[in-house]
Amino acid sequence: MASSNMTISVNKQVLFKQDPGAGWVETSHMEVVDRPLNVQLKQGEVLLKNLYLSVDPYMRGRMNTAAKSYSAPFTIGQPLTGGGISEVVESQRDGYAKGDLISSHIGWEQYTVVPAQQPIQKIVNPLNVPLSYFLGILGMPGATAYHGLLDIGEPKEGETVFVSGAAGAVGLVVGQIAKIKGCRVVGSAGTDEKVEQLVSTFGYDAAFNYKTVASQHDKLKELCPKGIDVYFDNVGGETLETVLSFMNTHGRLVECGMISQYNAEKPYGIKNLMLVVGRQLKIQGFIISSQLASKDFVTRFVGDMTKWIKEGKLSYTETITDGLENAPQAFVDMLKGANTGKQIIKIA
Amino acid sequence: MASSNMTISVNKQVLFKQDPGAGWVETSHMEVVDRPLNVQLKQGEVLLKNLYLSVDPYMRGRMNTAAKSYSAPFTIGQPLTGGGISEVVESQRDGYAKGDLISSHIGWEQYTVVPAQQPIQKIVNPLNVPLSYFLGILGMPGATAYHGLLDIGEPKEGETVFVSGAAGAVGLVVGQIAKIKGCRVVGSAGTDEKVEQLVSTFGYDAAFNYKTVASQHDKLKELCPKGIDVYFDNVGGETLETVLSFMNTHGRLVECGMISQYNAEKPYGIKNLMLVVGRQLKIQGFIISSQLASKDFVTRFVGDMTKWIKEGKLSYTETITDGLENAPQAFVDMLKGANTGKQIIKIA
Repeated sequence: MASSNMTISVNKQVLFKQDPGAGWVETSHMEVVDRPLNVQLKQGEVLLKNLYLSVDPYMRGRMNTAAKSYSAPFTIGQPLTGGGISEVVESQRDGYAKGDLISSHIGWEQYTVVPAQQPIQKIVNPLNVPLSYFLGILGMPGATAYHGLLDIGEPKEGETVFVSGAAGAVGLVVGQIAKIKGCRVVGSAGTDEKVEQLVSTFGYDAAFNYKTVASQHDKLKELCPKGIDVYFDNVGGETLETVLSFMNTHGRLVECGMISQYNAEKPYGIKNLMLVVGRQLKIQGFIISSQLASKDFVTRFVGDMTKWIKEGKLSYTETITDGLENAPQAFVDMLKGANTGKQIIKIA
Repeated sequence: MASSNMTISVNKQVLFKQDPGAGWVETSHMEVVDRPLNVQLKQGEVLLKNLYLSVDPYMRGRMNTAAKSYSAPFTIGQPLTGGGISEVVESQRDGYAKGDLISSHIGWEQYTVVPAQQPIQKIVNPLNVPLSYFLGILGMPGATAYHGLLDIGEPKEGETVFVSGAAGAVGLVVGQIAKIKGCRVVGSAGTDEKVEQLVSTFGYDAAFNYKTVASQHDKLKELCPKGIDVYFDNVGGETLETVLSFMNTHGRLVECGMISQYNAEKPYGIKNLMLVVGRQLKIQGFIISSQLASKDFVTRFVGDMTKWIKEGKLSYTETITDGLENAPQAFVDMLKGANTGKQIIKIA
């Protein structure tokens, strides 16, 4: 049964307009357009009305059209794409029906036709948490924090965990899970307000503003008197070098991202990597999509996180920007650190 | 029963005379002296006549008297110390008797009194291999190669393994074990003669002279057309940076040593560590002493290695320098790469 022809007169989209090169992303590298959408679904296709978009640091890498990043680059003239929450408007795929709530990879646009081959996931929401949570604490950033900290960082009770970019969507969750595991948790962030929230709301034992601190080295010495056992790294660069000098023997460095390097004209050279040998350190990078494809992982992740949310052990913060037309500015701001917690765009 | 008093009229020793600072070690940083040794063993002590000394790159770090290295620094005015093979001259320790062959940590001297607390190990040599092998392929370097490659590198059949410092005591063993595991093995070394031996004698599929090659990058591209899955790193620095750019997704970097950095006045800054995230790499350092304390490890190690030696799958090369008085020059030369395979001093 093919679907009937339908035209949506306005499908607002955020297009990728220009490769920003090595510098900062500007809103002018994107373009907001209104286009009509003519729909006639083929077998297996699904028409989605998009509700929420996820705005993530890794998307910066997809703007490098030449560089070999771990995600394919965006296409000039086409919408940006990313994680999103949507409602099914019409379905030609077995098992999916009008009204179903879906988590999937979508365009930055009001309506998306999902091709027959692309997997989508129905949202199961027994706790009736806000839908946007499935882009955050119960979605990719939550899974990133959970897998990175527990499976790579392997924190033990009484150890010290340091988190850079601690007020980001991932960092907020990392700190709380580390507390659940009985660690001392220290974080850094880029505004005093975020630093205050880390301690008051998100259970960090201590935090500091890396932009205003006189010496990151001295501050870490003060806040991590027993050294650092697990470093959850979101920033890379000079901070990584400083943290390396505080790592204890058999320490683990969870390489989640290196946001300081994404926009760096010249990458920072790490001069003390020799410590990896003498202190028997492990530095390990990961991309969460590999894990999210594993049913075992997802079961373990959702099980633990749901339990901790129920027990009131996990707080969660979002920065929700209203309106697709404001998405480019929100993306630019997120890369500069304006958000606290997960950056979301509410489309509808 | 206390032992009788005995005087050995000449106990030749190599003393640590001067901290070489950040530069190269010279023979003048050591001093060869003849001293008498007056011995009256207390309960638990053992008098050893030393036969062979092990000369290892890690000893360079122990010459930095100020720096916090992973081994305690040598003491000015005292003999250097290291791994050695000895024969028991007199024993006040249960289970040890005159004539026993021992592997232990000894001074660079003809005779050593081992304190009561210090563990020593009797050599079991069913294959009747040369005694010096227990300082090499069946000792610390062999264990370093075995543990680093297999437990950290986890090579899989068909993968590409690259080894820097491939003609060293560890590198020669790494390459051969990697071949046993069905990998393509490529190595680099610092003379054409070593490069030739790697391929003709030690089973490397390909090797190159890093000192004379026009571009290490181009050479690796040519010799590792499928990229690198396991990098066994003995050198660190710029080579590590180059190799990082060739690592395949989920690649493992076994950080055994960074000899290029030990004598570097300015450490080299690694600028492409960001690849660790996108390619999901693991960089892991280790020190073999932790493993050698594990009975499970030693059993597995000796079992596999003995089997492979019996089957003729492991070739082994030593550079044996005769005479304790020549030990300082041999140490200096080893740091500059003059030796092929394990550097040994034959004392008696």
